[in-house]
Order: sequence, then structure tokens, then C-alpha cells
Amino acid sequence: MTDNSFGKLFSFTSFGESHGVAIGCVVDGVPPNLPLSEAMIQPYLDRRRPGTSKFVTQRQEDDAVEILSGVFEGKTTGTPIGLLIRNKDQRSKDYGDIARQFRPGHADYTYQSKYGIRDHRGGGRSSARETAVRVAAGAIADLVLKQALGADYRVRGMVTQIGPHAINRDNIDWDERTKNPFFCADAAAADKWADYLDAVRKSGSSAGAVLEIVADGIPAGLGQPVYGKLDSELASAMMSINAAKGVEIGGGFALSAIEGHLASDQMRAGNSPEKPQFIGNQSGGILGGISSGQPIIVRVAIKPTSSILTPRQSIDRDGKNVDVVTKGRHDPCVGIRGVPVAEAMMSLVLVDMLMRHHAQTGILSQPQS
Amino acid sequence: MTDNSFGKLFSFTSFGESHGVAIGCVVDGVPPNLPLSEAMIQPYLDRRRPGTSKFVTQRQEDDAVEILSGVFEGKTTGTPIGLLIRNKDQRSKDYGDIARQFRPGHADYTYQSKYGIRDHRGGGRSSARETAVRVAAGAIADLVLKQALGADYRVRGMVTQIGPHAINRDNIDWDERTKNPFFCADAAAADKWADYLDAVRKSGSSAGAVLEIVADGIPAGLGQPVYGKLDSELASAMMSINAAKGVEIGGGFALSAIEGHLASDQMRAGNSPEKPQFIGNQSGGILGGISSGQPIIVRVAIKPTSSILTPRQSIDRDGKNVDVVTKGRHDPCVGIRGVPVAEAMMSLVLVDMLMRHHAQTGILSQPQS
Amino acid sequence: MTDNSFGKLFSFTSFGESHGVAIGCVVDGVPPNLPLSEAMIQPYLDRRRPGTSKFVTQRQEDDAVEILSGVFEGKTTGTPIGLLIRNKDQRSKDYGDIARQFRPGHADYTYQSKYGIRDHRGGGRSSARETAVRVAAGAIADLVLKQALGADYRVRGMVTQIGPHAINRDNIDWDERTKNPFFCADAAAADKWADYLDAVRKSGSSAGAVLEIVADGIPAGLGQPVYGKLDSELASAMMSINAAKGVEIGGGFALSAIEGHLASDQMRAGNSPEKPQFIGNQSGGILGGISSGQPIIVRVAIKPTSSILTPRQSIDRDGKNVDVVTKGRHDPCVGIRGVPVAEAMMSLVLVDMLMRHHAQTGILSQPQS
Amino acid sequence: MTDNSFGKLFSFTSFGESHGVAIGCVVDGVPPNLPLSEAMIQPYLDRRRPGTSKFVTQRQEDDAVEILSGVFEGKTTGTPIGLLIRNKDQRSKDYGDIARQFRPGHADYTYQSKYGIRDHRGGGRSSARETAVRVAAGAIADLVLKQALGADYRVRGMVTQIGPHAINRDNIDWDERTKNPFFCADAAAADKWADYLDAVRKSGSSAGAVLEIVADGIPAGLGQPVYGKLDSELASAMMSINAAKGVEIGGGFALSAIEGHLASDQMRAGNSPEKPQFIGNQSGGILGGISSGQPIIVRVAIKPTSSILTPRQSIDRDGKNVDVVTKGRHDPCVGIRGVPVAEAMMSLVLVDMLMRHHAQTGILSQPQS
Repeated sequence: MTDNSFGKLFSFTSFGESHGVAIGCVVDGVPPNLPLSEAMIQPYLDRRRPGTSKFVTQRQEDDAVEILSGVFEGKTTGTPIGLLIRNKDQRSKDYGDIARQFRPGHADYTYQSKYGIRDHRGGGRSSARETAVRVAAGAIADLVLKQALGADYRVRGMVTQIGPHAINRDNIDWDERTKNPFFCADAAAADKWADYLDAVRKSGSSAGAVLEIVADGIPAGLGQPVYGKLDSELASAMMSINAAKGVEIGGGFALSAIEGHLASDQMRAGNSPEKPQFIGNQSGGILGGISSGQPIIVRVAIKPTSSILTPRQSIDRDGKNVDVVTKGRHDPCVGIRGVPVAEAMMSLVLVDMLMRHHAQTGILSQPQS
Repeated sequence: MTDNSFGKLFSFTSFGESHGVAIGCVVDGVPPNLPLSEAMIQPYLDRRRPGTSKFVTQRQEDDAVEILSGVFEGKTTGTPIGLLIRNKDQRSKDYGDIARQFRPGHADYTYQSKYGIRDHRGGGRSSARETAVRVAAGAIADLVLKQALGADYRVRGMVTQIGPHAINRDNIDWDERTKNPFFCADAAAADKWADYLDAVRKSGSSAGAVLEIVADGIPAGLGQPVYGKLDSELASAMMSINAAKGVEIGGGFALSAIEGHLASDQMRAGNSPEKPQFIGNQSGGILGGISSGQPIIVRVAIKPTSSILTPRQSIDRDGKNVDVVTKGRHDPCVGIRGVPVAEAMMSLVLVDMLMRHHAQTGILSQPQS
Repeated sequence: MTDNSFGKLFSFTSFGESHGVAIGCVVDGVPPNLPLSEAMIQPYLDRRRPGTSKFVTQRQEDDAVEILSGVFEGKTTGTPIGLLIRNKDQRSKDYGDIARQFRPGHADYTYQSKYGIRDHRGGGRSSARETAVRVAAGAIADLVLKQALGADYRVRGMVTQIGPHAINRDNIDWDERTKNPFFCADAAAADKWADYLDAVRKSGSSAGAVLEIVADGIPAGLGQPVYGKLDSELASAMMSINAAKGVEIGGGFALSAIEGHLASDQMRAGNSPEKPQFIGNQSGGILGGISSGQPIIVRVAIKPTSSILTPRQSIDRDGKNVDVVTKGRHDPCVGIRGVPVAEAMMSLVLVDMLMRHHAQTGILSQPQS
Repeated sequence: MTDNSFGKLFSFTSFGESHGVAIGCVVDGVPPNLPLSEAMIQPYLDRRRPGTSKFVTQRQEDDAVEILSGVFEGKTTGTPIGLLIRNKDQRSKDYGDIARQFRPGHADYTYQSKYGIRDHRGGGRSSARETAVRVAAGAIADLVLKQALGADYRVRGMVTQIGPHAINRDNIDWDERTKNPFFCADAAAADKWADYLDAVRKSGSSAGAVLEIVADGIPAGLGQPVYGKLDSELASAMMSINAAKGVEIGGGFALSAIEGHLASDQMRAGNSPEKPQFIGNQSGGILGGISSGQPIIVRVAIKPTSSILTPRQSIDRDGKNVDVVTKGRHDPCVGIRGVPVAEAMMSLVLVDMLMRHHAQTGILSQPQS
């Protein structure tokens, strides 16, 4: 069962707490003979790294990943890849009170209820620190997909909304994402967000966000009906991200409000029978749980950071009323650093799906070695 | 892997096509000594049954379930329970054209792309007919939970929106759900929906919906971090329902727009340390992927039925342009009959989670037999 | 987890009791476009069928299999295949006493201890009747392997020992197996076994057996180190057969007694670098858990039938001493009908392994559709 | 699927090569609140440690284990436990030739065939070095079982045969095992083995062995029919150990030769209905795949070490004939150090089975928290 594993064929199993010795994972099922090095994984981690702007936590972690196994002379061997990231800047004294108090909106109370014990330091296992290993595993997934699917393949994500302020979709310029600290593809929105987040932070509060992840170059046919559907696996993957409260595919919730003749993407003959043209992509690239060849589009709702300076009512471990103020170094909007995590989850789902599809359909259609 | 299985400990494996001989499933992991009979499962199926009002498909299926194994002298034995539902009213001639045409919004094209073959009759495996076995398996899950959790436990669902018309939440009266053909808890909304759906159907189109499923009486502690979180499993479960395009927990997407001090549920001392009071339930009963003891709340977006009489552009198997008109007997709003299905998925997730929680935490805290 | 499922990618989930309504299974992961019909599965079942000679149980079952799903116009569609076999000759009155008594050597006591309830009729779920569905699923596996691996592929089994009488390996003639009721490849041994089994049965006792299953034409490279090794999966598969108490690969236990320079198969250059010649096959075709290209050889020890007429000491459900005499219709040597079952398990393991191998190594080495 | 994971509920996922940076694993599903420290795991590793006598490899590894996560203030938290063992004495130059040559009896050829690449150093992933992490994970399993099952529980193993020399079972004195370097419970046999192994090693060859692992104090009811049977899981576990070629339960292969009235253990009333007495234990404590309350007995055949100084015929990567002499530091009888590994596998299977049993039968019979 391995509740800390993700993926069926291309899987990774993660471990580690926010303020423990290290975090890490074992990536299993990686195809052999893929060029791989720490230097190839690190850029993915750097995009998620804390301390890079005033809009993210000031915790300083270089998030240097060490490959412990599974790579020989610069190539994967098909054996499991152990990845290790040592924790460095564990300033646990910031967390004195929360050893006994349950922070509202956090998992303190539920972990205590479940296990009768919890590592309270920085939220322990429930901290978003764990997502660093997802990004590391996702980097390998992305490299596999690049080699398997070629130049058309690409996974990229952006923040489309912070607090009440959504981007103007007419302004989307994906290149813009690297020019602001928000992974924002709309330059005007980024300016607005900077002001908004400054104000929110100064007021002792925090902001939510909506992320959008798009995968291009995905062939038709990925997704395993009926309980391994592509959208089902994506929903599970995205909802496992810290603070995620909603997931939608393509048109999503908006499709509920319109009528059927407007809701599905019509088709026209393309250059080949295998490549029809779709008029629109309200399906988000998925029909019946299987990819259609169109871009895969997923949106994720991220709630505002629960660690804020504004005092709130709560209880302690003895069930007594307390007021909680969460100090420490926190992202005013955790959704921002969620982008590389959600991209990683997209890649991880897709590579697993590609292998699952291949396993069933490949052995009769292709020559055996 | 068993892509047609759902659940880890309490699992079911389904089979069957819309117009095949039969549909059915194997339910595994059911605790022994649970009273069970076909008569106890049938009422759940009857709520999903087609042909019960003019707002659902007129296909006539009695959906009589046969228990093939796993029950002895009226009680479960702990061995797998085979369930069989014979298909009766397979009017396959309605589907002549779609043997060659791809219906927009349906899985015709993607199944063909994936497998190179498809049972086109009524959508084959991609039809919502498969959901009958979910409801049958969900019935057993519900009966287990009733016995395990007692009288406080209850799973119930409703439609909260059809097309652009949402219910007024101030009007919610759960008892109202049985008095209209929409599982609608707001009598005024039900009237409006009747008019709206009549008009939509007459115009040759269809309508989407939003469902809401609530589970009461769920103890704190269910959910397996970090890749078996309760919300993650629920998202996967709900997104596997036919035509689902979005899932949200508690406040969901709306939480992205508000500030942190408003977004998390504060806590106050309750009658016992184990039973604190929460002020609000924007978390939907889940924090860090673990149940908090509050009601579990999930909403699902269902897109409009793709089978409509309005002609739409598409292609056929040779890649040639065609116009598609979908005759046959179809639900003008598939979301309605989605309610008992989504309830079943909720029960199935919860019973599995209860067993997974128990497996890890039970063996040291409780005496062995 | 699905304890009643076997296989990871090519899997089947079985249900049914000896004297229940029916037995059956869901076969999942079958590649699409494989020609399949009930007539293609039935011959496999006929080899396992009871009532065919005086050396097997006289229970009369035609074991007619019904395909419920997953096949369309004579070909598999890639969706799960439901298989159903109705029980016919359930002469449950033979089993009156064992409702309360625990038959020595049977699972009566352990099922009661585990579940607190049991379907005692004919052993319920613990009966070898369940193996009919393995044979049906194994038939599909065999058909897939035939198409995937071509004419060199073949799985075949024999009984190599009944009671104390082993075959003379110099006499092995595989064609001989169909000429006696023992799947015996040594005509002289078959004669001896007939006399021996007659005597054993008349004395009110029963006999054990050793089975040997050989797979030819298996390419090098199948097996997933380190916890999905080919030998590991075969050991699990064979030990799951009723009454199995031992499994060995190639030289097996005999290898423990000899010295290293005699124990491993030396190699010589073959016609191509991919096809070396091995001198001997003490490894049974498996090195480090991975197939070597040599024949896969597995032997299984089957204990004597526990249902015998000789009275034996036991207890009843109240813990009181009783003498048990097992009437009913039983195989004097259950090992015999174990041959088609063990062949099926071999095919099921191999097809799963082929798919698992392919999934990991296929996506980078072969063009994507 | 995670081919490098073992266990369903109490699972571990291992990584690492013989001469890589480190080996390690992630142990998932450990119950919370179990006292745990590195000092509690280390004694288990010390029993498997190389370099402790002239009858095992002279490689020097302290096998110091580091706990990276999942333990807080001396107790498990229910979150995954990362375990790391750095490799120290990687004298890879010993392995110059085998970069190109395939050592007979080793997995060199099969890994190369499977993956098209291999880490040849010390056998890479196929080396028994990986078993150190099994022992570390098994230590945690053993500690859980001790607390769950109490003082009657105990897993212990011994070598019962080296080369052609078996112990005299009348001489078994379990305490004797610590007094010789063979885990031998028969002092006279240990003396004989010392002479035999000296001679074998000097002759440039090696010896096989048979191991026996016994678990006492296991309650009746563990084992999940029909594809998660206790014996089936044990067979899989033991066959996954390096160089294992056979597994038997209780009477094992010997049961095939005797008649039914002698082969099953009769029962008599015990002190309570729940505790009958069995006359004999030919079943090895398992009936129908479920524990009977008697000691669980498993034997494992280990082939002779394949790394020997005697030259043998083989081929190289180009398919050319070569003579292979395996230098390096090798165990003359790998079976010896297999004892703590096989004990670990027994504990790992049992704790997983206990949790799986509990998951299904526990939630209706016991009060919920």
C-alpha cells in the first residue's frame, strides 16, 4: 500500500519531516539508459527553493540533492534511485508553542488525533517541505518524458489567480513567468499581485491562489479506465499537494453551468486520421479518462497559508482554549511555490500513465527483444 | 494494478459494458459476520435506476443484483463477494452510426486511439452503466460503516446546481430530496430546474450539474498522509465518475480568493479534549489529508450530457468529417443520477480509509485475539 | 490489496465457494485485439475437470465458462473480462458433519479462527474448486504469450512423483502425458502409480505428488529485482495452490548439497551474442531473479489429500474431541489435477512479468504511437 | 508496483548497490508510539555483518544505520522511516574483469540482457549487500511484533545443512547457535561444517546450505486467502533472498512421499476451545494459507556461492568465450549470513499479515476511537 508512495509503474516513495535530518525518496521503475545526474535534477529544485523573494518563506535551504543509487557512469540502470536532501536551516525554536497548541487550518490536530503523537517542528511530515522530493522525482519523470515523447512534449505551470485577482487570459505570455516572483504569465497581474501580497502580509494575513498546469505533446490514449483514469489520477495527485482544496480539468466547474451543445469540443478532419482537429479544449485534453491528443489542462485551488501572525482561537493538547499566533518563516502565499510542485505531479502522473498504457498495449503490437 | 479495481483494503473490481451480457464486480476485504442479502443492496440500486422520471434515461433496467459468493446463511464470511447484474434492455440498434462515428464529448475517439478497438454499443465500457456496480459495492461499504461507526454516521448527497441555477443554501432541507426527481434539497430550486430541464431537452441539448456529498459521524484520524490523503482519495474517486470535470473539498475554489485569517476554521474547547468545536467548516472536515471529526464535504462538477440531438461536427474512423446526432435514450442531465454514485464513492473511500487507519494504529493499541 | 487478486499488470480477481452459486473472476490488463472466445478457454478447463477418471473426484461439473465482458466481435477490447462458471453438482449433504467438525489437514479450523464464520460446504473458499478460475484466467494468459512470444513459447507440466514413486527422468516423453490419467511423461511410472493409487484409495488413505512445470521460449530479461523476482513470483504463485507445501527452481534443494564449481551453469558462445549456450540448467532458467533465456523449471510439492476415509482425531467447534471421517467425493491424489492449475499459474506469472518488463524498458527503446 | 518494495501494509522500499554510495530503505506503515532508536536496530545488523569470521566475506563494513525520519523523541510517529547505511569498504578494483565478463551463476548476464546496462561493481543491485536493509527493516518489524504479540512471540533461524552435512535434529539446542560461526544449533554438526568449509574454500569452491526459520507465538488466523496466503507470502519472501532456490513449509517435499493418514496433524482438545493441541506440525503452522497457532516453520535452500576461484567457462559482453575466475572477498557459504536475512523476512511477512488480518476483522469487532 505504501501510503507514502506515488505512482504504479514509475513510482516514488518519500520520507522526511520539515525539521528532521533529511528528506528523500526512492524512485522506482525508471527506464534504464537515461542520462541522469544531480546537475540535471537541481534546476527543478531551484525553482521551488525557499528564500528567493520576499513573497516566499525566508528559510534558507540550498536543497542540494544527492543521488545515492540507480545511476552508473552517468546513466540510469533500471534499479531504484535513492535521492537525499539534507535539511539545513531548521530553526526549530520558532516552533516552541506549537508543541502543545493546534494551529487552525493546519494538520496539528488531525495528526495528533490519528497517531497520538506528532513531530510538531515545522509541521513535521505535514509540512510542504516534503514537496521538494516530489520536485526531484518529477525532474526524472520529466526527463523520461522528454526522451520518450520528443520535442512536442512540455509541462508548464502558472499561477492564474492570487486572492481575488485573476489574470487576464488574453494577456497570457508564458515567457513572462520567469520575469516575476509569481510564475505569472500576465505582467499586469503580476504587478497587482505584488501590491496585494505586500498589503496582505503587512496586515498579518495571507493569500490563496489558483494554479494552472498544462501538458503539451501528450499522445492520445493515455489513461486507464475506469479507476485509473488520467483525470482521476491527476485529481488525486494535485489534491495531495499541501493546502489544495479543489481540482478541475479543462472547463471544470464552469461546464456545469452551460448547455451540452456548447460544452463538448467538436472535431474536424486533420492532416491524418490519427490527428484530428478539436474545436476548443473544454475537455482539458481528457475524454472518458483517456488523453485525446489535445493539451492536458488542470487547475488547482490553493487555500491561503494557515501560518499567519493574526491571532486566532484554538485549543491545546489538553483541550483548553488558547490564542494562536504563528511566528516562524512562512510563505504569504503558498500557492506560488506550488507551481513547480504541481508541474512535478503532472509529469509524474503522465510518465506513469505512459508506462501503464504501454504495458498493456505494447506487448502484442511490438516485437519482443 | 488492476485498473478496474477501486480501494486498497476494502476494494471492488468491476467489469462489464453498457450493452454486454452483464455488469458486475468482486468486492474484497469485507469484514466477516456482517448481515448481508440482495434485499439489503437493492434499495441503493433503485435510487440510481434508470427510467424513473422524464428527467433521466428511459432505458428500462430493473438492476436486480445477484450475490454469487461471500455470503453464507445471511452473513458475510470474509471471502470475496461476487455481484452480478444482467443487462436487459440493450436496444443496440439505436447505436448504428456510432460504430463508425466519434461522438463529440464522448470517449469514442479516445478508446479507439488507445485500444485500436472498441465496443461502441452504448459507449461500451465508458458508459455510466458501469456505475451501477459502484452503487452495489457502495451499499456494502455503507452497511459496514453503519455497523462500525454507529448512529452518528451518515452519507448523503444532493444536487446543488443544474445549469446556471444553484440552490439557495438557506433553503436546504435534506428531507426535501426524496420529493423531487433531482435529489434537490431546495424545493424552490427543484421547481425551477424542472422548467429549465424541460426547455433544454426540448431544444435538443442537455444540462450540467454540481453535486454535494456530505458524510457525518466520521471520527477524526482517517486519511493516510501523504499519498493516501482522504481528500486525495476522494478527488480520485469523484473524478472517476463519468462526466466529472471538477472536485472541491469544503470551501474549495472559493478559498483561493479570501485571506488567511478568514480561511481556516478556528477551534474552541468542546465537551471533551477529543471533541473540540470548530467554528465553521471551510476545511470540509479534512486537514492535512486527515479527517478532523467535522462533516466531510465534497462537491463534484458534472458536465452536460454529451449525447444530444443537436447535430455537431465530428469525424469518423477514417478521419472523414461527419455530422453527429446522438439518438438513443439519454439522461438530459447525467448529474442527477450521479448522486447515488457519488454517495457510493464516498462510502467506499471512507470504509477503505477506516480499515487503512485501523491497520496501522490498531495492532499496538488493542489486544490481539 | 485485493487478497483475491493475482498479478500486477495482467491480473485476475477471483471469487466463489465450492458449493456456492458460482465461481468466477475478472481478468484485467489483457491486451486488446486478441482473438478470444469461450471455445478457446474451454479446452484448458477440460484438462482440470473433475470426474474424468477413477483417480480424481467423481463430482460432475462441466465447468462451462461464460465470458461476460471485455470481448467484442471475437476480440478482446482491453477492458476487463468477466468470467463465470456456475456450480452444478453441489451435493452438500455429504458435508453434514463438517459444519461442526474441523477436518485435520484442512483449513476448517483456521478459517473459523480467522473469520469467526465459515462456509463449511465442501471447504467453501478453501476448496480447490477455486482453481478452475485460475485455469480460465491462465488460458487467456497462455493465448497472449503465444501471440507475443511466437512458436518457441510453450508451458507444460507433468507429475514427476506420486507417493514415494518418482519417474525415471531418462524415460521422459512429454507426449506420453496425454496417454494416462496422471499427466505422467514416463509410461512405466504411470503403470506403477495406477497400482499404488488403487491400493492407497482402498486402504482409505491418499497420496502426495510432485509436479514439474517447464516454460520454453521465454526471452532473457523477465523478472523485476528485487521484490518482484521471477522465482519469487513463481514461488508465491505455486505455493498458493491448494495443498502445496514446497517449491523449488531448477536444481532446487539438491543444489544445497553440492559444491559451487558444480552448481552453476557455465556458458559458451552461441550463434549470436544474445543467444549464448548454457551448459546445464541448474538455475532453472533464472539468475538473480531474471530469466536467462533457458527453460524455466519449477517443481511443486503437493501433500496427500486431507479428505480420507480413515478416521482421525480432531475437535469440533466447541473444542470437544471427535473422530473425523471425511466422506464426499475426493481426489485420492490432488496433485494430479494440480498440473493444469500449476501450468496456469506459470502462464499467469510469465505474462505479468512480460508486461512489467516491457513497461519499464519499452518506452524509451521503442517509438511511441 | 514498486518492484523494490516489500509488504502491503507494513512495507519497505529499498535502494542501493553493492559498491554505490549507500544502501537504504523507507519503512512505511509502522504503528506510532513504538520506542525506536538506531541502537535498537543495530544488533540485528551486527548478526549479518561481514568480516566476523573466516567463514564469511572479509569485506569490512560497520553497517551503521542512520534513522532519517519517522522517529520523534525516541518514538515512531506513524510517518515513514528513512534508513541509511553508507557503504565504506568498496574495493571495486577487485572487479576489473567482470565489467566485461559474465560470471556463471551470477546475475551479470541477465541484468545486462534486461536493462542493456549494469553496475558491475560487486554485482551492483544483485549483490547480497542489499539484504542489510532487509535486516534493518526486519528489526523494526520484530520490535512491533514483540509489542503486539507479547512474550510468546519469537522468530529464530538456524542453518540445518551445509553441503551434504545436515544436523542431527535430536541434537538441536537453539542456544548453541551463538557459540559457532554458522548459526548452527547442533554443536557436533558445527565442528563438521568447520572442517568441510575449510576444505571447500581451500579447493577454490564453495558450499550450499539449508536454513530453517521458526516463528513461535503466532496467533491463529494470519494469512489472506487465496492470493495472500501466509505460506505464499513466505515463499515469495524467502525466494527473494539471494541464491535461494527452494522453499518448503513444515513437512515440505517429504510430505509428497507419505500417505494421507500420516500427513496431517490430528487435533485434541486443549485448555480452551481457542487453543487446541495439534499432534505434530507437518503443516508448519499453516493450513489453507492461514496460521493455525502452531509454530510457523519454513526452510530455504541456498545454492553454493557462485563467486569462486576455480576457473569456469563463460562469455563476455561481445559473446566471446572466456574463462572466469572470481577474486574479491566472498562468503564461502552465503547461506550462513542468510539466517538473519531470512529471520528478517519472516518478521516482515508476519507483521504485514498481522496488520492485514487486523484491517479486515478489526473494525467491526472492536470499538472505534
